[in-house]
Amino acid sequence: MMLALKEAEKAVEAGEVPVGAVIVDRESGQVLAQAHNRVERDHDPTAHAEVLAIRAVGERQNSARLENCDLYVTLEPCPMCATAISFARIKRVYYGAYDPKGGGVDHGPRVYEHSTCHHAPEVYGGISEESCAEILRTFFQSRR
Amino acid sequence: MMLALKEAEKAVEAGEVPVGAVIVDRESGQVLAQAHNRVERDHDPTAHAEVLAIRAVGERQNSARLENCDLYVTLEPCPMCATAISFARIKRVYYGAYDPKGGGVDHGPRVYEHSTCHHAPEVYGGISEESCAEILRTFFQSRR
Repeated sequence: MMLALKEAEKAVEAGEVPVGAVIVDRESGQVLAQAHNRVERDHDPTAHAEVLAIRAVGERQNSARLENCDLYVTLEPCPMCATAISFARIKRVYYGAYDPKGGGVDHGPRVYEHSTCHHAPEVYGGISEESCAEILRTFFQSRR
Repeated sequence: MMLALKEAEKAVEAGEVPVGAVIVDRESGQVLAQAHNRVERDHDPTAHAEVLAIRAVGERQNSARLENCDLYVTLEPCPMCATAISFARIKRVYYGAYDPKGGGVDHGPRVYEHSTCHHAPEVYGGISEESCAEILRTFFQSRR
């Protein structure tokens, strides 16, 4: 999660909403991808940290299925990212700050709780919650 | 929708799940992007037709907000695509076949029905439904 937080800090510098994500190989512990939000820079509303990390590992592994992977992300995934994580068959999701306003895992559409969700990862929320929330709070306060 | 169906046909040829999408400028009627599923080719679980079309228009317009656009897609968007459409601020979604097993608009998480959804497009389902469903049925039958 510390690596994901460092990615979030890079997002701050780039003027992007500070969310960072890291994908790790479950067996070796190797970091396969790390990414931060690039919505503004890429002019791409889908360029959330999780989606970018998933795309990077898919490309690297020549497979759309990341079955041997865990994902760390500083904020509760939105419904888009939660579904992308499901499609990617990621095993475990560790996330930092809860997101009552935009989250799609433990809030809002709760994507993994529907019978139409074919793969639900194990989810662990609130990891390094305070640091992950603080970087977002500071970012949005500075923008007011 | 005929253009979106042609994209779905290209997907069949490429061995991809046959879903096609088209994004149109609401004022001029100009086609801004057309795309079909490329999950297998791109090794990218997020490479659904809608996401690819949104990315293409964002790049073309140098903006992550596609506020003056409508989207046509042959299948009810999944929760990932439904959320991406919301983030992109697309005005209207016209979709073909209903998708009780994987849809996220009128089935499953029903992404637009939650108060945490900040932009819900107008949605019109069942457009050219039979043709859109038939191409999917044929594809999956041939794979059994």
